[in-house]
Amino acid sequence: MYKYTEEIPFGPLPYFRTEEFSEIVLECSERLKRLAGAPENAHVYLLTSSGTGAMEAVAAGCFSKDDNLLVVDGGGFGHRFSEIAEHHGIPHECVDIEFGQTLTPEMLDAAASGNDFTGMLVNLHETTNGRLYDKDLLASFCKTHGLYLVIDVIASFLADPLDFENDGVDALIISSQKALALPPGLSIVILSDRLYKKIIEKDIKPFSMYFDFRVAEADAVRGQTSFTPAIGTVIALRERLERLETEGGADAATARTKDLAEDFRFRIEELIEKGALELPAHPLSNACTPIIFPNGNAKEVYTNLAHKHGVWLNPNGGELADKVLRVGHLGNLSINDNALLARLLTEILT
Amino acid sequence: MYKYTEEIPFGPLPYFRTEEFSEIVLECSERLKRLAGAPENAHVYLLTSSGTGAMEAVAAGCFSKDDNLLVVDGGGFGHRFSEIAEHHGIPHECVDIEFGQTLTPEMLDAAASGNDFTGMLVNLHETTNGRLYDKDLLASFCKTHGLYLVIDVIASFLADPLDFENDGVDALIISSQKALALPPGLSIVILSDRLYKKIIEKDIKPFSMYFDFRVAEADAVRGQTSFTPAIGTVIALRERLERLETEGGADAATARTKDLAEDFRFRIEELIEKGALELPAHPLSNACTPIIFPNGNAKEVYTNLAHKHGVWLNPNGGELADKVLRVGHLGNLSINDNALLARLLTEILT
Repeated sequence: MYKYTEEIPFGPLPYFRTEEFSEIVLECSERLKRLAGAPENAHVYLLTSSGTGAMEAVAAGCFSKDDNLLVVDGGGFGHRFSEIAEHHGIPHECVDIEFGQTLTPEMLDAAASGNDFTGMLVNLHETTNGRLYDKDLLASFCKTHGLYLVIDVIASFLADPLDFENDGVDALIISSQKALALPPGLSIVILSDRLYKKIIEKDIKPFSMYFDFRVAEADAVRGQTSFTPAIGTVIALRERLERLETEGGADAATARTKDLAEDFRFRIEELIEKGALELPAHPLSNACTPIIFPNGNAKEVYTNLAHKHGVWLNPNGGELADKVLRVGHLGNLSINDNALLARLLTEILT
Repeated sequence: MYKYTEEIPFGPLPYFRTEEFSEIVLECSERLKRLAGAPENAHVYLLTSSGTGAMEAVAAGCFSKDDNLLVVDGGGFGHRFSEIAEHHGIPHECVDIEFGQTLTPEMLDAAASGNDFTGMLVNLHETTNGRLYDKDLLASFCKTHGLYLVIDVIASFLADPLDFENDGVDALIISSQKALALPPGLSIVILSDRLYKKIIEKDIKPFSMYFDFRVAEADAVRGQTSFTPAIGTVIALRERLERLETEGGADAATARTKDLAEDFRFRIEELIEKGALELPAHPLSNACTPIIFPNGNAKEVYTNLAHKHGVWLNPNGGELADKVLRVGHLGNLSINDNALLARLLTEILT
């Protein structure tokens, strides 16, 4: 295959309407399907957008006024799904879940009673509070009730187990900046063939030309994107996917993140026992540990870690701003980073 | 200001919901307004999308069924504007311009007769064929008829003269990958305050949550984007804008590109005199020289230059595929690149 090097005198990135670039896109699609456990007839689209663009592309591009969606609203990103449905006038009901609460079969059954849902929108890992939903619960509920299952895995891809085909997923939403460790700005949508066919058969009117899957499909089959893609990120994606597969695929990547998360949680056990830190009561993704500061000094600790030690955690907005900081376990991190952070937290909090 | 360095152990790019990142975004906005000649009350939005996303955001986000748009359709990107208007049911008329043809006042007047237009959509440089439109003609026509003037300058920003305020521009659409020489995937929209107010006063229903300028405005005033931006590209944008201003601003950048374009055109004069190459009859942007191969061997020359010499020109699609290659003059190019390309073309064609 053609290698893109610095030798190209006319611009640092190659022009993309070429066979060489098509090969790269097609290779990305195949590798993504393998990593996600998606069948050969699944459809892969590379969107130049934030994850929210991809969430809207799927929710408003695959469903319409004739649908009825069950939205798992357990934090900022679940709420965003409900806003998208609201914005586009798609009938929907939300299952509201509080911080610390776990999604149960009873909550889903209660929502389903009296409703004839056609699809479910859920973020497997609600990254604003670190909650991981039970994929088996989601899958079996959707199978029983005949729903299309749309899962945003932006914050859980390659961190928490999920298999597109076995878990009955119809749409998977991925972004470049989390487990794929690429710059943000590229999102990936994988659609099941049955959900793609629904768009055609139900003649869902595309809300946007930019996010029209029918247009994207015509280009995707020949390894192209309809509009100028984030070329550099796509080239880096191919390399990253190749390395992920060489290193053992999704299972191995998930295991590495799980090890890192468990190591960090072990290192802060003493702080938790002393009452200096808490963890939420809900199940946690391997991608992130939300740490609760019972004294409400989260912002202070954030500033201290960032400005004095160059360690940047993810702060929260809204009502959790003073209470919670999030420690990510994706990306180029090691147990040395865990050790450093645990030591700094101990110094600051005791 | 805080410097982003490799020292950050938790991820290679900083989290963006911070004051430090807001400062960067606000600095970009101010510098972009200065470079574009936009007044202080203009609105700057950073969109994580291809240029087409930004074209749709403006055309379908600022106009509605109650408008009537004049679309200058002189090639692939002009046609895209008309498709966007069509897609969203916005009444519009196209001025169709053939390859080689120049847009004249008479053509605009003919379109205006019997129509009560509210806005014009135009790509200052129609990059599929290198045509540059006369900015003074566009500006005076829009002023005379009271139209909002929307200009896509993706392929002409910092290459051809244009001044937002003096030329009466209401919306400017810019992308990261051309004169700004950044990776593709970030687009910039600058709206005049009167066009922003039109959205509010006419209560234009946003076609997309992702591309809603009202949502973007609420975040932009505090230096934030509504959704995860292409963080790395935004940081690089700040640096690039600072350098552009240090090196003399828009006038100096435009002059450099003009010099490069004129140098290249001078170097191929002999090939043109011999009939081995032709230039289009329409006015050309400084950003690009479309070279016509009278023998229809454009594809052959493209492959030869690319695979034998590592020189990548931009091929055309559609009916111009065999006839035209485009030589870009933006980016990290010098007269040495011009000399090399002119020499190779001479070798291949004579």
